[in-house]
Amino acid sequence: MTEGASTSYPLSSRNRVKRRHDRGFYDHETVHRILDSSMLCHVSYVIDGQPYCTPTFFWREGTKLYWHGSSASRMLENQSEGQKVCLTVAHLDSLVLARCGFNHSADYRAVMVFGSAYLVTDPDEKQRAVVAMVDRFFPDRTASLRASSKQEIKATSFIAMEIEEASAKIRAKGVADDDEDYELPIYAEKIPVRTVLGKPEPCSRLLDGVTRPDSLDGYREGRVLDDALRDAYFVQYPEG
Amino acid sequence: MTEGASTSYPLSSRNRVKRRHDRGFYDHETVHRILDSSMLCHVSYVIDGQPYCTPTFFWREGTKLYWHGSSASRMLENQSEGQKVCLTVAHLDSLVLARCGFNHSADYRAVMVFGSAYLVTDPDEKQRAVVAMVDRFFPDRTASLRASSKQEIKATSFIAMEIEEASAKIRAKGVADDDEDYELPIYAEKIPVRTVLGKPEPCSRLLDGVTRPDSLDGYREGRVLDDALRDAYFVQYPEG
Repeated sequence: MTEGASTSYPLSSRNRVKRRHDRGFYDHETVHRILDSSMLCHVSYVIDGQPYCTPTFFWREGTKLYWHGSSASRMLENQSEGQKVCLTVAHLDSLVLARCGFNHSADYRAVMVFGSAYLVTDPDEKQRAVVAMVDRFFPDRTASLRASSKQEIKATSFIAMEIEEASAKIRAKGVADDDEDYELPIYAEKIPVRTVLGKPEPCSRLLDGVTRPDSLDGYREGRVLDDALRDAYFVQYPEG
Repeated sequence: MTEGASTSYPLSSRNRVKRRHDRGFYDHETVHRILDSSMLCHVSYVIDGQPYCTPTFFWREGTKLYWHGSSASRMLENQSEGQKVCLTVAHLDSLVLARCGFNHSADYRAVMVFGSAYLVTDPDEKQRAVVAMVDRFFPDRTASLRASSKQEIKATSFIAMEIEEASAKIRAKGVADDDEDYELPIYAEKIPVRTVLGKPEPCSRLLDGVTRPDSLDGYREGRVLDDALRDAYFVQYPEG
């Protein structure tokens, strides 16, 4: 599961960033950092020629991605036998207001991953996923929880996908106008956007004496969600 | 373009919320509010059986959605002739830490839209889109900008899609544990998540005397992005 920083995903016509190719990255480090900074992805798949785009939670383990849901769901039923999937994560970092319409833009970090999804049927891999779906976000939390029942595990499908190809696309330059437009008396700016944590709200039905564990310290009010998620990843998976 | 609050999108096997159907909504008001609170969507489409999921900016006009990009892009080239598209918007509102693994969840608001995309070729519709791609987010801003050139307009494709079917899915209940689990000495909480605007950063190359227009007052530091975007929509399109 260890990897060199220089390791990259292979290029193909599927994942090559065609437009603005200066914004494209394929190395594991860049791709994984963007993935690990998010809990939410969008999974695209095809049923009878019809595309579907389902937002769901996911996590990474090495070069594999996992997500899960009810065993009865249409999405999972249709991703269990090697179906092609495109999984995308996008972070919006700023709104960019330029001096002409077409230079209005945004700073962002996005990753598209291509692969073939399969249903996790191996009992050991499924058991690892039951733990990882919580502990990847909240390190070591599973040990403190009511154990998952056989029925709960049975009712849940886990889907895994080896990352066959991936590309990251990053824009981080703020206002970028045509040279001659800088001479115009037009207001332009960048508005940063951040997704932050609010004040944690303890469940109103906590038993007396039950307090917030220190392991949740990374999830504190005002913190950027990206940072909390990425740090949690490395606490749980120090090997990256 | 006006509509009754009770108007709903039709139901089919494509958009019916199958799992957790208590979380499903189909009325225009709910669907549109979630769409109008976002600048970013994920567009899914199929090329030769391969699904793609591209994050992009979009906006609504009545029951039509628009997005745009380079005329040379693969995505737009493949969405110009009535291709089936699924367009999804998701807002993450909180992380939910429960007393067992499978009750870990999140509060969210999401919309999936189904339709057939087409290239905007009518010159009047394209001209309206050139304005709306800016003014829908920043009301009346186009009038203050350097006019778009014929070349810029030619180099850009606008894609439109009538909303054929849509569904919203909302979870907003925080911690929801199994009844018997409330008796356990386990910590549980909801962590609110908000996407907020940072302090606007004026372009470093502004001409002397050029100041921020009042029309951008809605985009002020600390404001929730959802609110700023939705308010901007109603400033520009008071008819909804």
